[in-house]
Amino acid sequence: MKVRNLLGERLKTVSEDCQIESQALMIRGGYMKNVASGIYSFFPPTQRISKKIQKILREEMDRIDGQEVLFPVVMPASLWELSGRYTGIGSEMCRFTDRSDNKLVLGMTHEEAAVHLAQNTAKSYTQYPFMIYQIQTKFRDEPRARGGLIRVREFTMKDAYSFHTSQEDLEKYYERAYEAYNRIFKRCGLKNFVSVKSDSGMMGGKISHEYMSLTDIGEDTIVICDCGYRSNLEVADSIITNEEQPLEKLKKVPTPGQKTIEAVCSFLGSDEKHSCKAVIYQENLTDDYVIVFIRGDLEVNETKLRNHLKKEIHPATAITENGIVAGYCGPYGIKTKATIVYDKSLDGARNLVAGGNEIDVHFSGLNIERDIGKVDYVDVAKAKEGGICPVCGKRSLKISRGIEIGNIFQLGDKYTKSMGMTYLDANNTERYPIMGCYGIGVGRLIASVCQESHDDYGPIWPMSIAPWQVEVCNLRVSDQSVNDCAEGLVKDLESRGVEVLYDDREVRPGFMFADADLFGVPVRVVVSPKNCEKGVVEVSARDKSFKTEFPIKDAAKEITNLVNKMLEEFNI
Amino acid sequence: MKVRNLLGERLKTVSEDCQIESQALMIRGGYMKNVASGIYSFFPPTQRISKKIQKILREEMDRIDGQEVLFPVVMPASLWELSGRYTGIGSEMCRFTDRSDNKLVLGMTHEEAAVHLAQNTAKSYTQYPFMIYQIQTKFRDEPRARGGLIRVREFTMKDAYSFHTSQEDLEKYYERAYEAYNRIFKRCGLKNFVSVKSDSGMMGGKISHEYMSLTDIGEDTIVICDCGYRSNLEVADSIITNEEQPLEKLKKVPTPGQKTIEAVCSFLGSDEKHSCKAVIYQENLTDDYVIVFIRGDLEVNETKLRNHLKKEIHPATAITENGIVAGYCGPYGIKTKATIVYDKSLDGARNLVAGGNEIDVHFSGLNIERDIGKVDYVDVAKAKEGGICPVCGKRSLKISRGIEIGNIFQLGDKYTKSMGMTYLDANNTERYPIMGCYGIGVGRLIASVCQESHDDYGPIWPMSIAPWQVEVCNLRVSDQSVNDCAEGLVKDLESRGVEVLYDDREVRPGFMFADADLFGVPVRVVVSPKNCEKGVVEVSARDKSFKTEFPIKDAAKEITNLVNKMLEEFNI
Repeated sequence: MKVRNLLGERLKTVSEDCQIESQALMIRGGYMKNVASGIYSFFPPTQRISKKIQKILREEMDRIDGQEVLFPVVMPASLWELSGRYTGIGSEMCRFTDRSDNKLVLGMTHEEAAVHLAQNTAKSYTQYPFMIYQIQTKFRDEPRARGGLIRVREFTMKDAYSFHTSQEDLEKYYERAYEAYNRIFKRCGLKNFVSVKSDSGMMGGKISHEYMSLTDIGEDTIVICDCGYRSNLEVADSIITNEEQPLEKLKKVPTPGQKTIEAVCSFLGSDEKHSCKAVIYQENLTDDYVIVFIRGDLEVNETKLRNHLKKEIHPATAITENGIVAGYCGPYGIKTKATIVYDKSLDGARNLVAGGNEIDVHFSGLNIERDIGKVDYVDVAKAKEGGICPVCGKRSLKISRGIEIGNIFQLGDKYTKSMGMTYLDANNTERYPIMGCYGIGVGRLIASVCQESHDDYGPIWPMSIAPWQVEVCNLRVSDQSVNDCAEGLVKDLESRGVEVLYDDREVRPGFMFADADLFGVPVRVVVSPKNCEKGVVEVSARDKSFKTEFPIKDAAKEITNLVNKMLEEFNI
Repeated sequence: MKVRNLLGERLKTVSEDCQIESQALMIRGGYMKNVASGIYSFFPPTQRISKKIQKILREEMDRIDGQEVLFPVVMPASLWELSGRYTGIGSEMCRFTDRSDNKLVLGMTHEEAAVHLAQNTAKSYTQYPFMIYQIQTKFRDEPRARGGLIRVREFTMKDAYSFHTSQEDLEKYYERAYEAYNRIFKRCGLKNFVSVKSDSGMMGGKISHEYMSLTDIGEDTIVICDCGYRSNLEVADSIITNEEQPLEKLKKVPTPGQKTIEAVCSFLGSDEKHSCKAVIYQENLTDDYVIVFIRGDLEVNETKLRNHLKKEIHPATAITENGIVAGYCGPYGIKTKATIVYDKSLDGARNLVAGGNEIDVHFSGLNIERDIGKVDYVDVAKAKEGGICPVCGKRSLKISRGIEIGNIFQLGDKYTKSMGMTYLDANNTERYPIMGCYGIGVGRLIASVCQESHDDYGPIWPMSIAPWQVEVCNLRVSDQSVNDCAEGLVKDLESRGVEVLYDDREVRPGFMFADADLFGVPVRVVVSPKNCEKGVVEVSARDKSFKTEFPIKDAAKEITNLVNKMLEEFNI
């Protein structure tokens, strides 16, 4: 491919409002063009990267006995009504009607379609387990598309669905999928990624893992311990210990104007660890109040609270319930119809400062068991940097940020049961298959690799997914011998199966190299009058790991060897 | 791949209402499952065929210098408003709004997206010509989905867009695309196809060709002449000659109750060739009347009429206009505000019978030039079997039926002009590029191949696109030597790069062969106790073109050679 014929342009700056480097570089480098919020068209280099990633995805899915199928983008609402998700999912699902007023949806995930396809074709236990996968376009009407390909509305996804006759069999397969995912990300050249326990969200099921590319610009927060423990903050257990202390007397104390726990503790000279604060939410549907009492130094983890309540909630907007005195709400003597949740951090906490349920009044010396009685404690607190690891028990938790690049879920029988998919087991008893599902977004993976592997001048694509393997820069087209050398080299490389991007434009070297940086091709070959006189070509790595010269006559062979050696790293 | 693990089931009969054989066989063979009207999910065999076709499409598009890109499935309405097609296209385009009430559409074709992507990146004439293509899902809300994959609503399509600085350059490229299309269909194993001149329809532009797979179940009618002339009936010129005759007198004749031209001619004992009938339409928007006068033995070609009027029309439902006397409408003495169109067949026609514009009255001896004066004649008649070929002039037209499997259009500057895409020519003058576009639907191509190449028992896939190249049938798993032979052969074939479907189910041979017929794999190898005793395997072609035996020890090599030889046919 000649640069002069390649569609797309390289820019010095971006006019678009870019939040992160990968986005800015991929716009500047002519990789994509925004069509609407979260919707992009892709220029040839991205499509070339995408096809290489898709090849890796297919190979790894086939390796774990996957069978490629294709589900539709547009599905009848009836399919989603069966699983209950037609109403269960909010406005991130696009709904519309066809010319005959039939309700349709755009697929944002394909559990229903997978069950529909497999249903009635796997009626005996002898046909299990099996896994089907597709690579297909999906659409999610994200309210906040951002970061280029990090959070889009339309995207290409590899999604896989496995079917099993037992939870044990699913778990065995889940392990294989887990390993396949590790191989996929490594083969795509991603280095700094981890798998973490995660919340299953709208997918249902209990056990799930997310693969996270660790980066400061990540939207997700991850809790990590050296012992190997990893979890999305959303579901990370919070382990809190409280010191034994002699019980003090419960005392009413005036706290005029001290409405926050920080203010109260500072006013009373007490540690926030010895306080109990109230965080107030409302249920989305009813606006009913939910009061969470939690140790003053901790934050509420809303995902855990939501999972505990099994209801959607939002922070309370205005407090109008009798019994809740905003700024002075506490567990002692409160009279309210609100749901009350006690976080586990209060279990065993002694001599607490807490709201007095009267304006300008708090209590000190509150001991919940003594003063209130037995309550149920629930873990709804956010894990903290330096907190206790729930696995090794050390105070060694670290908080990182990451981009979710893939996920795997154990779904149970949520979909097979609701859609009535059954098989006959060895005893001729009808049973619902157990499912797992496994997703990777191609575009987000490309952006994550770019985010991890770039410099100020452009992406540094790993050899395994680079749009081209070698870029040949011809610095003097008008010089016959330079031109002959460059053209000969390109032909020779191509005949050896090397993917070459060839720049023979009559532009300044600086201009050509700036473009080459944006193409991010891993190996660059410079053919110039000076080199030609010396009888060599100059070969360097985009990541600056090497720079060398090869005699012109051996160049094609040497460069081919180099490319193959660089590819070896990804043979896992 | 083992048949026992393959998702999907083979059926003896189909419960679905199937209009054509390919549809019935692909449902029976476990190729696809209907999800909603015109929407299918695809089992692994179809996906395997589809990927082979996509590979051929990519190779042929790359061969004519195409660059692969990707446009979105979901597009903002604003893009289609620019070209005028947001309102120009009817309810076959799905329109909906996102969560922020922005208007979106599902892509049914991507001219607008292609211009959007190329716009601003090809600003100098030196960057032309170029061609970009994608393989992507499309959705058209067809009112009558039918025939399985022949007419669907959601489909995978290869669509290509070329950009040029002159009509001449487009025509040069159009020739290359034309040849590429011939190669594509041949490489996919299609034999009986032709390219025909066609109507550009909603795409705009003047010159276009359709590729038609000739088959009795085709929806399109094609006019063909041995001289090489081919045209979709919709746009086929109609050449009509009229004999010279001495002019008769114009005479009013009573024709009580004779309302059709057939009835009148039979009543008066006159030839329909010597009559002038009126065919009455209404404009869709205004309901205004359009009267077509045409020779009594011919039919109106509504596509040609529509193109002449540049308006959408429909056959008149009820005639309420004063001046039009239903059943007795004729050109002589008519007083009407309707648009009148004279078909070319009336040019030079002598002594016609025509309506008298009074109930129960016709004229005879009508001679338009003498009795009415000079009128403009327009060709709006349907070509007929045995009609005159517009190229060679012989009465040799044949009418065939076909399925449209691809199309190529010369678009002119319709899209670049309306969307404001320009480049600077050598004189620094701003100009609009000229476009061509080129489409092939993957699913319809699969169905067309199946329609052309099948027997009563299943599809007969060409080696180039077959889901697997060889099927090995193990007729006695319980017999150690048979089993060893079959398993060894499968391994050996796979190590030689042959794609093998392996059936080792413990089922009756008849059952296994019926399934094999439905898989349509071109080469079948039977490993049975009888053959094993003889030291051979039995090898036969799905199309029955050969049946032979190979010694077990040479079988893998011989079968591999056979597959490669069968593939050679498609090396074009």
